[in-house]
Amino acid sequence: MVDRLSDPQVETALKALEGWTVCLDRHAIQKIFKFKSFSEAWGFMNKIAVFAEEMDHHPEWFNVYNRVEITLTTHDAGGLSELDFALAEKIEGLI
Amino acid sequence: MVDRLSDPQVETALKALEGWTVCLDRHAIQKIFKFKSFSEAWGFMNKIAVFAEEMDHHPEWFNVYNRVEITLTTHDAGGLSELDFALAEKIEGLI
Repeated sequence: MVDRLSDPQVETALKALEGWTVCLDRHAIQKIFKFKSFSEAWGFMNKIAVFAEEMDHHPEWFNVYNRVEITLTTHDAGGLSELDFALAEKIEGLI
Repeated sequence: MVDRLSDPQVETALKALEGWTVCLDRHAIQKIFKFKSFSEAWGFMNKIAVFAEEMDHHPEWFNVYNRVEITLTTHDAGGLSELDFALAEKIEGLI
């Protein structure tokens, strides 16, 4: 079981990330990525899929062609947890 | 440029597919797939990604854990085209 972060903890964690926004209504963070092609977007998603399996923490994501919308939340915690920020950091490391 | 199918053509094409529904408001077809795990869902999506690149026709899709929601439409045709049904058929071939 992982703890839900408090609002101030989320604020602090968010400062370390570029371009991620909080969806306040659903206690999640979100970012939209755009690539040159589907193939680039897919390569990016495949790398994230590996992280997700390693961490046993999975994104909610939508893809159409070169666009990838990623939403991170921790259902077990009923909001945002350290896992979401750890995964977001790994995702940022790919850019 | 690919032609948009007429409503009767869509009706006929849909009969050959199991579980796909038309989103009338957006001239698209949609189906939700559920797997045992993220890893199975991801394997399924990876195979579709290969078809999509081969056909140069890409799905709109949403994934969370073991759930994959696929929407097919042909933006160039302003609705459904043969490409959508060809891709849907390939997707069904994986199940």
